[in-house]
Amino acid sequence: MFWLRGVELALILEQFLFSSDAAEELKGAIAEKNHELVYLYDTNLVDEIWKESRPKPPNKPIRVHDLKYAGVDVASKLSSLRSELISAGSSAIVVSMLDEVAWLLNLRGNDVPHSPVMYAYLVVDVNGAKLFIDNSKVTPEVMDHLKNAGIELRPYESILSEIESLAAQGAHLWLDTSSVNAAIINTFMSACDRYFGSLKNKSKNNTKTCDGFNGQSGGPTGVYRMSPISLEKAVKNHAELEGMRNSHLRDAAALAQFWVWLEEEIQKDVVLTEVEVADKLLEFRSKQAGFLDTSFDTISGSGANGAIIHYKPEADTCSAVDAKKLFLLDSGAQYIDGTTDITRTVHFGEPTARQIECFTRVLQGHIALDQAVFPENTPGFVLDAFARSSLWKIGLDYRHGTGHGVGAALNVHEGPQSISFRFGNMTPLQKGMVVSNEPGYYEDHAFGIRIENLLCVKDADTPNCFGGIGYLGFEKLTFVPIQSKLVDLSLLSVAEIDWLNDYHSQVWEKVSSHLGNHFLLFLHIRCMCMGSML
Amino acid sequence: MFWLRGVELALILEQFLFSSDAAEELKGAIAEKNHELVYLYDTNLVDEIWKESRPKPPNKPIRVHDLKYAGVDVASKLSSLRSELISAGSSAIVVSMLDEVAWLLNLRGNDVPHSPVMYAYLVVDVNGAKLFIDNSKVTPEVMDHLKNAGIELRPYESILSEIESLAAQGAHLWLDTSSVNAAIINTFMSACDRYFGSLKNKSKNNTKTCDGFNGQSGGPTGVYRMSPISLEKAVKNHAELEGMRNSHLRDAAALAQFWVWLEEEIQKDVVLTEVEVADKLLEFRSKQAGFLDTSFDTISGSGANGAIIHYKPEADTCSAVDAKKLFLLDSGAQYIDGTTDITRTVHFGEPTARQIECFTRVLQGHIALDQAVFPENTPGFVLDAFARSSLWKIGLDYRHGTGHGVGAALNVHEGPQSISFRFGNMTPLQKGMVVSNEPGYYEDHAFGIRIENLLCVKDADTPNCFGGIGYLGFEKLTFVPIQSKLVDLSLLSVAEIDWLNDYHSQVWEKVSSHLGNHFLLFLHIRCMCMGSML
Repeated sequence: MFWLRGVELALILEQFLFSSDAAEELKGAIAEKNHELVYLYDTNLVDEIWKESRPKPPNKPIRVHDLKYAGVDVASKLSSLRSELISAGSSAIVVSMLDEVAWLLNLRGNDVPHSPVMYAYLVVDVNGAKLFIDNSKVTPEVMDHLKNAGIELRPYESILSEIESLAAQGAHLWLDTSSVNAAIINTFMSACDRYFGSLKNKSKNNTKTCDGFNGQSGGPTGVYRMSPISLEKAVKNHAELEGMRNSHLRDAAALAQFWVWLEEEIQKDVVLTEVEVADKLLEFRSKQAGFLDTSFDTISGSGANGAIIHYKPEADTCSAVDAKKLFLLDSGAQYIDGTTDITRTVHFGEPTARQIECFTRVLQGHIALDQAVFPENTPGFVLDAFARSSLWKIGLDYRHGTGHGVGAALNVHEGPQSISFRFGNMTPLQKGMVVSNEPGYYEDHAFGIRIENLLCVKDADTPNCFGGIGYLGFEKLTFVPIQSKLVDLSLLSVAEIDWLNDYHSQVWEKVSSHLGNHFLLFLHIRCMCMGSML
Repeated sequence: MFWLRGVELALILEQFLFSSDAAEELKGAIAEKNHELVYLYDTNLVDEIWKESRPKPPNKPIRVHDLKYAGVDVASKLSSLRSELISAGSSAIVVSMLDEVAWLLNLRGNDVPHSPVMYAYLVVDVNGAKLFIDNSKVTPEVMDHLKNAGIELRPYESILSEIESLAAQGAHLWLDTSSVNAAIINTFMSACDRYFGSLKNKSKNNTKTCDGFNGQSGGPTGVYRMSPISLEKAVKNHAELEGMRNSHLRDAAALAQFWVWLEEEIQKDVVLTEVEVADKLLEFRSKQAGFLDTSFDTISGSGANGAIIHYKPEADTCSAVDAKKLFLLDSGAQYIDGTTDITRTVHFGEPTARQIECFTRVLQGHIALDQAVFPENTPGFVLDAFARSSLWKIGLDYRHGTGHGVGAALNVHEGPQSISFRFGNMTPLQKGMVVSNEPGYYEDHAFGIRIENLLCVKDADTPNCFGGIGYLGFEKLTFVPIQSKLVDLSLLSVAEIDWLNDYHSQVWEKVSSHLGNHFLLFLHIRCMCMGSML
């Protein structure tokens, strides 16, 4: 939205909608062009246009995330956070990432599609904590839960006055400028300026009151550091991992049922669109215990649509899923106990030699990352090349990262870790983190291939520990067959064939008990041992 | 060297011996401890102690590096450098890296052990060039060579007055602070200060003369950037690569003769020390055409000494090389046409299962890097994990980088590229660069393993070029057998066994014509095909 100010353009920014870092970056970029960033405080120009037609903010009730899934109670999480505050020399922290608030308080909400979070701010200081939230979402059970953890409720809108009051009290406020919005940062900075301004005035009148102004004995200050909750949340505890494992098996059962249905329909020459297929998958998933929602918009891409990495089919324009084309399906679900994200690529007719070669090389990359063992303190980008190496050998590659973090019954994308060709993220992979393993290959206007499992970082239990440190590896969470028709066994090493056979025998072992007879035969065939060509 | 100044310690620094960046880092580090860095200009405290006993500076004659090995004449190199100067907005450059001077001028010297360089500075401006060197090293042939390229000679000691004069003339001087010494940088900065100081004084007296003082129309300035010669030198031309290939074959012949001799001596129970073995290798190498020198101090490490990464045996204390211990030999040579660097690890008796497993995993890392294909613009660190992956699987690793750049008939270590677990070096590997491939494993107080070949980056000629860019791979330069006794075939994939057999058949094909009958049988046995265990 652009606004003229004098002779230059001014960009009007609704400062609740941008993180402080993003706003600063924008400010710098537009200043170079002689434009100006103007913050909006009390109005939102889009709201002015909406007027009465603006939808009401979401107000579905929030719920307690059961301790048997959360694993650690709120009091323990707050206590650990307070230790972090103290060792960082800060007296309070503003938590504004919605998944961090949900994780820290063992609460889940319904305000954001696919992500079980609720709009809220949380301020934790060394003695207490205040949750800023629309009261109408807070059930009596949630109220009790919060009370037990010593958390007070405040109106959502009162966050800025709380920030002002923290500054007035001389708080050393931990603020993660990469996630906290510009409104909060700007409010705190202005309040700090006022604090020191008024002290200066006082000191002019009475030199005895200026103790607080020497920057040592007091006065508010910002502690600008990465939120400590991000890493704590990424490293899953035993209960969270158990929930992830269990929900993945139910998800795998739904997928097995779905693939049987789809294969049968296509054999019967039923014409199905990408959207119809995605809807049917949702139907199978929603029958599984603890199902809540999809974890993102399903990417159901047939033929050339599979080459569009974030493709979203629309009912009236989308393609048919049929026996002539490769079909890429990237989907996931939110369950009460875990979050899933899986991609499979299949062909119901005769794949081309090109498709088979590309699929096999993507699979080799998938296996190489899955099997990687690496020392502690290794950032994810070190492993990224393992997933590309086989494609690189014939001059192919893909333009996305290989893995992202995944929340436990939370957001399907989370940090701070990643596995990517971008070298900036130095966060080491740690035991308990969940990451996706999703190499791909996309041939524009032709087809797309991606094979995605979720993995959990585990101890590798190596016979040696060179350097006196631990070595880590991965445990698979996803157990859904990989279509053997698309694999060129002659390209695989014996170890890679063993991997595939071992994976399918685990799929059979873990998923068959979740399935009825009709689906068991399918699973059995899909999990049959592939002979070595060697 | 420490010197008291007031109550604080002052570190006295001979500023010709430190790069400007190193001196600044030191200054910062000691300032934190309240100490002071004091530069020495006209005296060197070590010289004061040496007095008359100080050895004379080296003064062996320098020689012209034949165009058939250099590939590009000096005029062309200077012309390319001048284009770089112009596009960087600089009028002159000071070249102080000795290998850069040697490479740029197609000259070679004898001033530094193992590196065919001579002490010199070179100043190149858009019209001419001046070489600062001890005249006594300049033969009539070299004099003609320099004259033809339009290069004037100046006394080595006059470099600082040249720098002052460049500042006085308002030069925009390109200075690579990571390599140019502190004396030059400090001299130039002081001279710039004087220049602008005197302009200020003039302008006080006469406002008409201050044009040069607005920073736009003139005045000296430093252009602080990485030397453009480093990268140009690293990317070898056709003639340089041919010289590298040819010298590696002669080197391989010398090594084959050496290994036959050593094996026979040990079978005869002759007691040989690490130094005697290294001396004998030098004897074989020195018989090869074009041999000049070793390219570094030979690392001849028997048993536990092999675990000391930069071990240098001493005649009176070193160990015996015998049939009971693993023996690591890392050595290289300077030839008229190329530089070699090779490590082999062998056992003349019965290696332990542990030694065989470790050797095999180091070999797998060596093969993985050798066979890597990767897109253009890939920095070396991306490939480093390929060389460690097999060791990581059993919790082993090594504490050095996997590859360094190597000069063509120049320094055995050169930048700017590297292949290392350190993520800071973003220089992409480029076609024509030479790198070592030297994974290892070192068990303290027990044994050391390293397998090192030199590789040249080449086009991979992949059937696809995803992203519209080229894909690169490696060509081997080193052809010396790898001891099959140390390989556990059951750990290798079919592709890895094929690699080993293919490598040995290339060794036989390329090196056998350089050997007499006595050595041919040895080579033939060493190059025999290894059966697959599968």
